[in-house]
Amino acid sequence: MKKIIITAAAICMLSAFTAIQKKQRIVFFGDSITEAGVKPTGFITRLGEMLKQKGLDNNYELMGAGIGGNKVYDLYLRMEDDVLAKNPDVVVIWVGVNDVWHKRTFGTGTDPDKFEKFYNAIIKKLQAKNIKVLVCTPAAIGEKTDFSNELDGDLNKYAGIIRNIAKNNNCPLIDLRKLFLSYNLANNKDNKESGILTTDRVHLNDAGNNAVADAMYKALIP
Amino acid sequence: MKKIIITAAAICMLSAFTAIQKKQRIVFFGDSITEAGVKPTGFITRLGEMLKQKGLDNNYELMGAGIGGNKVYDLYLRMEDDVLAKNPDVVVIWVGVNDVWHKRTFGTGTDPDKFEKFYNAIIKKLQAKNIKVLVCTPAAIGEKTDFSNELDGDLNKYAGIIRNIAKNNNCPLIDLRKLFLSYNLANNKDNKESGILTTDRVHLNDAGNNAVADAMYKALIP
Amino acid sequence: MKKIIITAAAICMLSAFTAIQKKQRIVFFGDSITEAGVKPTGFITRLGEMLKQKGLDNNYELMGAGIGGNKVYDLYLRMEDDVLAKNPDVVVIWVGVNDVWHKRTFGTGTDPDKFEKFYNAIIKKLQAKNIKVLVCTPAAIGEKTDFSNELDGDLNKYAGIIRNIAKNNNCPLIDLRKLFLSYNLANNKDNKESGILTTDRVHLNDAGNNAVADAMYKALIP
Amino acid sequence: MKKIIITAAAICMLSAFTAIQKKQRIVFFGDSITEAGVKPTGFITRLGEMLKQKGLDNNYELMGAGIGGNKVYDLYLRMEDDVLAKNPDVVVIWVGVNDVWHKRTFGTGTDPDKFEKFYNAIIKKLQAKNIKVLVCTPAAIGEKTDFSNELDGDLNKYAGIIRNIAKNNNCPLIDLRKLFLSYNLANNKDNKESGILTTDRVHLNDAGNNAVADAMYKALIP
Repeated sequence: MKKIIITAAAICMLSAFTAIQKKQRIVFFGDSITEAGVKPTGFITRLGEMLKQKGLDNNYELMGAGIGGNKVYDLYLRMEDDVLAKNPDVVVIWVGVNDVWHKRTFGTGTDPDKFEKFYNAIIKKLQAKNIKVLVCTPAAIGEKTDFSNELDGDLNKYAGIIRNIAKNNNCPLIDLRKLFLSYNLANNKDNKESGILTTDRVHLNDAGNNAVADAMYKALIP
Repeated sequence: MKKIIITAAAICMLSAFTAIQKKQRIVFFGDSITEAGVKPTGFITRLGEMLKQKGLDNNYELMGAGIGGNKVYDLYLRMEDDVLAKNPDVVVIWVGVNDVWHKRTFGTGTDPDKFEKFYNAIIKKLQAKNIKVLVCTPAAIGEKTDFSNELDGDLNKYAGIIRNIAKNNNCPLIDLRKLFLSYNLANNKDNKESGILTTDRVHLNDAGNNAVADAMYKALIP
Repeated sequence: MKKIIITAAAICMLSAFTAIQKKQRIVFFGDSITEAGVKPTGFITRLGEMLKQKGLDNNYELMGAGIGGNKVYDLYLRMEDDVLAKNPDVVVIWVGVNDVWHKRTFGTGTDPDKFEKFYNAIIKKLQAKNIKVLVCTPAAIGEKTDFSNELDGDLNKYAGIIRNIAKNNNCPLIDLRKLFLSYNLANNKDNKESGILTTDRVHLNDAGNNAVADAMYKALIP
Repeated sequence: MKKIIITAAAICMLSAFTAIQKKQRIVFFGDSITEAGVKPTGFITRLGEMLKQKGLDNNYELMGAGIGGNKVYDLYLRMEDDVLAKNPDVVVIWVGVNDVWHKRTFGTGTDPDKFEKFYNAIIKKLQAKNIKVLVCTPAAIGEKTDFSNELDGDLNKYAGIIRNIAKNNNCPLIDLRKLFLSYNLANNKDNKESGILTTDRVHLNDAGNNAVADAMYKALIP
């Protein structure tokens, strides 16, 4: 009799546990780098494999929401449709490269103060829905290690803005800019402009996808 | 007895009339050109004088909401505080010069498709509050009449976008670009880059303020 | 005896005629548009075919000296090697699109006053060697006919500078900008941005190559 | 008798010495920073005072040839009139800030490869006249020490080009960029964008003029 009771309790507990343990839905919200993250060798796919290796793939659901060319206000404009509609538990925002780059290529980069305003507006809306938000600094536009990548200065500025945004909004920071710089200082002795973590100065090669997946794993998985 | 009834009816009518005739509040929402509109010789001040001359100054209340350097997404970001909080009956939107100009001066102009999206978003929010919206095309960056003002082409493009926005949202259009071009073709025989309707290629001189006030009067006052 | 004398005189005259009638060497000096001019359907090739049709192909030798991306100071820097070394009788200069375009794409367009200085310096060096110089206005960056091609204003400005340069240096002008605008106003009713005289807003399609070859023929061949 | 001979010899030697010791003419060739160098507190004036203190003011003649807004090809275009016409013994070239800066402000910066070509062309013409040439790296556009001055990356790139030019042409290098960076890392603990060596991120304050005068003194005076 006692045994039966225990078994019943165990079943109850298990089912309760299962109920609690619904999959956490994580949406990756960003530009072309995030868009490529769901490709077979992309960092989101890689993150999924890492979770599987740890036996955690039933606990998390990873979704990409990256669109090429996006700046912070593109994220703002499509947040409802592409993120909130998916009802995520966690959102990882990774944006900034185009906000800087488009100044040079189209004349339509983002003013630093507007960058901050739209970024904050996105976070506030997500946090108001009880969504956990993590933010990333833009990794690189060029991997040269002698500080002569054309847009380094401005990219450092926007990375600084994001570090402040993280602090002010209590968002965990995934400091990819710092990570990429350290990695390049150690591994890019020939001062190459690409080929270390990127294919083309901006988008990730295999090493880049692995480095980003590692950093995100640490930040996302307790 | 009859007299009393008539008097009572008259009082009723009068009070009804007063209720209907509350002042219409018109907010002018824009950039530095609108910001200067409330100065002693500005077009908003001038509009007020025109209303007074017609004995209509008790029917309308004019309020400036222009801030220098504003682009369409600046208007979007401050719409709640600077326009909706004033509970206007009518809003006149005049923006676009900086969306084009900042491409050249700061590298932070506005992409045409984002210009349209934010512009539409502003109109939709205002119209949802039952506010009447009028839109203006950007007048000029340079008054040369041989079509060699550096940003003419792009300004024409954004003016075209606004004309479509007006049509699609049923907003009356105040086509200041067309007005300024016609005026200059008639009055700027020496192909000067400023001094006809502007002081500095962009901001209004007296003739410019008068021309804009006239155009707005026609569009605003039945 | 008389006959012999006449024959001898005829031979003298013929050889004199031949001596005078050495082939005129015409060098086309410009950017990618000129570079493509020597391709099978290019305007320089087309010009050669027109000369052949008229039986004038023994009188003229056409040489391309176009390099993609060139601005006026690129022409200046390579003038010795690529033009003077060929000892031409005539040089057709066609440059200006990149001087305007690179402002937007790389931030390295050419200031108007420097454009004029380098252009004049090229002409002076060529004319000092008794070379006849013809100059062309930049044709188009976009073919839209509602004056909303982004760079129309600036392109008109640089076309105006070249028209003055032609006047001041007594150089025949081939006004391709005017030609393209007229042609588009007549033939581009749908306000397309390319496909009328260009493949991509800038580089010539067959109709464009024919139009340019016709205009150059008129200017070059008496 | 012996005494007289000695005296005569001394006079000969002195006059010979005087003949050899004609004043060395040093021309400072550059942009607005050099233009301001001849002002009462400018670095050229300061250099003159340093020479006087050392009793060397009869050995050197300092001449400013700076014009605001100049890029490398402006120097090239006015080299004959403003430098060669003065028949200098030494020329100090300091240019580069506008070649980078004008990319942002006017869209008319200088391509890196053209920067190098015009710079080399200037040096070659000067050296062909047996003029000693010293070259300077551009000091700063912004003094922030966290590497977030917008144009740092590009400025480092052009500084690198000049270091190579110095090596390839055997020109002594005055590495003002390195000097300013070291000075700021030591003295700009608050990460200010100006006020340490510059008044406005670019132009020299008193400390800046002193630092530049010191560096130039070391490079110029044996």
